[in-house]
Amino acid sequence: MSKDSYTLEPVGFVENDFAETRSDPDVFAGTVSHIRVLPRFADGLFRIEGFERLYIIYVFDRSQGFEMIIHPRGDVTRPERGVFATHSPRRPNPVGLTVVELLGVEGEVLTVRGLDAVDGTPVIDIKPCDR
Amino acid sequence: MSKDSYTLEPVGFVENDFAETRSDPDVFAGTVSHIRVLPRFADGLFRIEGFERLYIIYVFDRSQGFEMIIHPRGDVTRPERGVFATHSPRRPNPVGLTVVELLGVEGEVLTVRGLDAVDGTPVIDIKPCDR
Repeated sequence: MSKDSYTLEPVGFVENDFAETRSDPDVFAGTVSHIRVLPRFADGLFRIEGFERLYIIYVFDRSQGFEMIIHPRGDVTRPERGVFATHSPRRPNPVGLTVVELLGVEGEVLTVRGLDAVDGTPVIDIKPCDR
Repeated sequence: MSKDSYTLEPVGFVENDFAETRSDPDVFAGTVSHIRVLPRFADGLFRIEGFERLYIIYVFDRSQGFEMIIHPRGDVTRPERGVFATHSPRRPNPVGLTVVELLGVEGEVLTVRGLDAVDGTPVIDIKPCDR
């Protein structure tokens, strides 16, 4: 890999009832989603059921472009901030991060609560949230 | 972007006294690092000083290869786990994540405590840790 760019590939995809982007992460707080890990990465879930919470890192693959200074959640009544001081999906690298509650593991499918990503979102990493 | 891969570019780089990879994240817990954001992304830090903690997402650019099932921290006395149940730098996408304490902001340079990344590590995203 060069110092100029890094190429990442999906390790799985989000499955839920949200087909469209939502601006309000509160909508997702109680939502149950599945993460279907690709078969070749399924062994990576071994003993993950021992963790109550996970970090899910994913790509906002439907996000286009970005601005460096924005109103959080597009709400013009909120003071502007730099994009790195927000969770906007429109950012230099369209990477999302959510702490989810792990509800269950069945084969290569995780069931989680609180993932603020829409159906079909590519997941690039899963880590235990243990510290 | 296609569904097969995603290309990310550094938004900045880590500066600290750790030139080599360490297997023990505890070593880094009290370590102060700087993150120098590239000039074209510096506006993205506007008002970030309002947050006590940040998520730093970076690339383990010196990590090579991966195995799906490993002993955490390479310690054979610890039960094996899938790589997604560990923080190993040797993972399908070599992406690292740390919650750091924000100590200060000066121009395009963040001063943080607790970043477990070595000197020169490319940073791909910075987010507030506020929920």
